[in-house]
Amino acid sequence: MTRTGLAILGSTGSIGRQTLDVVRSLPDRFDVITLAAGSNVTLLEEQAREFRPQLVYAEREDEYIRERITSGALECDWSFMEEMAAHPQVDVVVVGTVGAAGLSPTLSAVAAGKAVAIANKEVLVMAGHIVTAEAKKSGAELRPIDSEHSAIWQCLWGEDPDTVDRIVITASGGAFRDTPRAELARVTAEEALRHPNWQMGQKITVDSATLLNKGLECIEARWLFDVPLERIEVLLHRESIVHSLVEFRDGSLKAQLGVPDMRLPIQCALTYPERLPGASVPRLDLRMINNLTFGIPDARKYPCLGLALDAGRRGGTYPAVLGAADEVAVQNFLAGHLSYLGIAHVIEDTLSAHDGNSNPSLDRVLEADSWARKYAEGRVKAGSKR
Amino acid sequence: MTRTGLAILGSTGSIGRQTLDVVRSLPDRFDVITLAAGSNVTLLEEQAREFRPQLVYAEREDEYIRERITSGALECDWSFMEEMAAHPQVDVVVVGTVGAAGLSPTLSAVAAGKAVAIANKEVLVMAGHIVTAEAKKSGAELRPIDSEHSAIWQCLWGEDPDTVDRIVITASGGAFRDTPRAELARVTAEEALRHPNWQMGQKITVDSATLLNKGLECIEARWLFDVPLERIEVLLHRESIVHSLVEFRDGSLKAQLGVPDMRLPIQCALTYPERLPGASVPRLDLRMINNLTFGIPDARKYPCLGLALDAGRRGGTYPAVLGAADEVAVQNFLAGHLSYLGIAHVIEDTLSAHDGNSNPSLDRVLEADSWARKYAEGRVKAGSKR
Repeated sequence: MTRTGLAILGSTGSIGRQTLDVVRSLPDRFDVITLAAGSNVTLLEEQAREFRPQLVYAEREDEYIRERITSGALECDWSFMEEMAAHPQVDVVVVGTVGAAGLSPTLSAVAAGKAVAIANKEVLVMAGHIVTAEAKKSGAELRPIDSEHSAIWQCLWGEDPDTVDRIVITASGGAFRDTPRAELARVTAEEALRHPNWQMGQKITVDSATLLNKGLECIEARWLFDVPLERIEVLLHRESIVHSLVEFRDGSLKAQLGVPDMRLPIQCALTYPERLPGASVPRLDLRMINNLTFGIPDARKYPCLGLALDAGRRGGTYPAVLGAADEVAVQNFLAGHLSYLGIAHVIEDTLSAHDGNSNPSLDRVLEADSWARKYAEGRVKAGSKR
Repeated sequence: MTRTGLAILGSTGSIGRQTLDVVRSLPDRFDVITLAAGSNVTLLEEQAREFRPQLVYAEREDEYIRERITSGALECDWSFMEEMAAHPQVDVVVVGTVGAAGLSPTLSAVAAGKAVAIANKEVLVMAGHIVTAEAKKSGAELRPIDSEHSAIWQCLWGEDPDTVDRIVITASGGAFRDTPRAELARVTAEEALRHPNWQMGQKITVDSATLLNKGLECIEARWLFDVPLERIEVLLHRESIVHSLVEFRDGSLKAQLGVPDMRLPIQCALTYPERLPGASVPRLDLRMINNLTFGIPDARKYPCLGLALDAGRRGGTYPAVLGAADEVAVQNFLAGHLSYLGIAHVIEDTLSAHDGNSNPSLDRVLEADSWARKYAEGRVKAGSKR
């Protein structure tokens, strides 16, 4: 079996830990060449002991890790994510970081022609036009890790992309799918974090409740599959069994199904074009499925979805502004400084105030991101929990 | 656009007529080279006037058609199906005949290395071992037309066949899915012909009610996709929207969905590996789907399914005996000479009485077929509507 060298960026986060689960379940298949984390250096050290990478990096408290390296407690070197992503022994770069932090290493991986397994939404939302153009130049392959995009990707294997008529992204509906719209004014962060189907990070769980997540996914799909946003739809599907669908021009639809477990799309992205026996992934028991339900999202209940699709259609710097404003709004919501409904208001106001650029450079995108963060913070402070 | 030459065997039947619908909707794509029908010579003549084939054939009343040809009323020649299937201008042979009649022309098409679009169940049920072995030799391609097998086939495009763990064939449950088992003793042929989802021929509609159809489909799938019967399952799915599923060894499942309309799988089989815009096929409106339901068939309510799977596992001449006994039983049921529950009894008794052959030649298969027909007829006559 060919061994695959991995760079895992964001190794201590939800995606990173599940990536390492997949690596554990297929020990003859992968070499973990590099590990990069944010602030959880204790777990990073544990992971480094188990997987013996050549390079490590931690965004915060790096002095601690540097000391462990120097003292010989860890047999690896210090490096930055951009270098990790371009390391000659790395075949697949897993971008499991959260937020804009994944942008620069992704571009480095793309420039080096690596296969890039992307779980980080912001990378394509902010800079999809740049990442896809660079990938076309270098021949780097973008592989989705999100369950929805993995489903679409798998449905497209063996198909001619020109025959895609429509992409249908399913949405569980999040924590408040059964909460009447009138009651959304009173919901708390704690309630928003109770996702019915998926175990995920806090920000993504709130974005699932607002469906902003689905808006971001539509924008990502637009870049990953080169399909205009007008042909991408969101369908509510409570059970999170059908992960997404593709409709072809002859009227045939394909769907990918599975248990809601990120290790399946991660394994797909790591082993492509092979499918290996999935020891780590539980099987979907069709005998347990009686009903699969589907429905159209109520635009009034989920205003963030419309805001996101609108930002996606405007393109340029607008999706970056959308993502930045949402990040600020969700952080403030989780900290108790903003109401649930305030999230959409902060995003809407920030987008309205933005003076966009239609084909921005990466610098202009990052400028727009910074501007949006400041604007949204100001808007939260001024808004007194509106 | 490349034009594809078609031989349509069984052109006046349900599959043949829908194949010609697809041809009408894609007029620049196909040349109808040959048409063969059973007894409906009036429709055959109409079709010949519209599609101007080079060769025609009718199983019955051929004097009438021969006269039309001789008099110049039809500008075509007379031929037999075996010659049609091997005609040099034919690229795809559509086997839409019913029963054992498709066997010999299919083998002729396979020997000539044609693409063979198979709707005729009996061909693979009776002689799957021969047809697939011959196809391997000649390089002929077998393309399914049944909606279930087309679904499986489409789910396998771009996939490695060795990674298939399980095939799940969906079943509407047929006309009596809501009829309590105790009432099945009294149901009539007229009731059996009211299929809830599909417009099909009479025999297939009754086979849908008994689920014998699904047993035959499992046997067909075994040959088409080279997957052992133990890995093929039947799942009840009332809505006939999910046409079948494939589970891969990593735990991922793919499904193909669409409206219940045979023109979609027919078009797929005719245009493969392309997908062309499907003007003739209505779109599935996801907005109209609220619920998709699934369930396990009750073995006591559907004894024919178990009989069929058992015959499939025994292999050799048993599937031919199964198919022949079923054909006789269903004909007698439709004619009022056998009760609905009698169908399973006739099949069971015929299979029990059969002295099978494990790797039969085509002649031995046809002998077993004849024997089974006689035995089953005798069994019906002796059984006095048991």
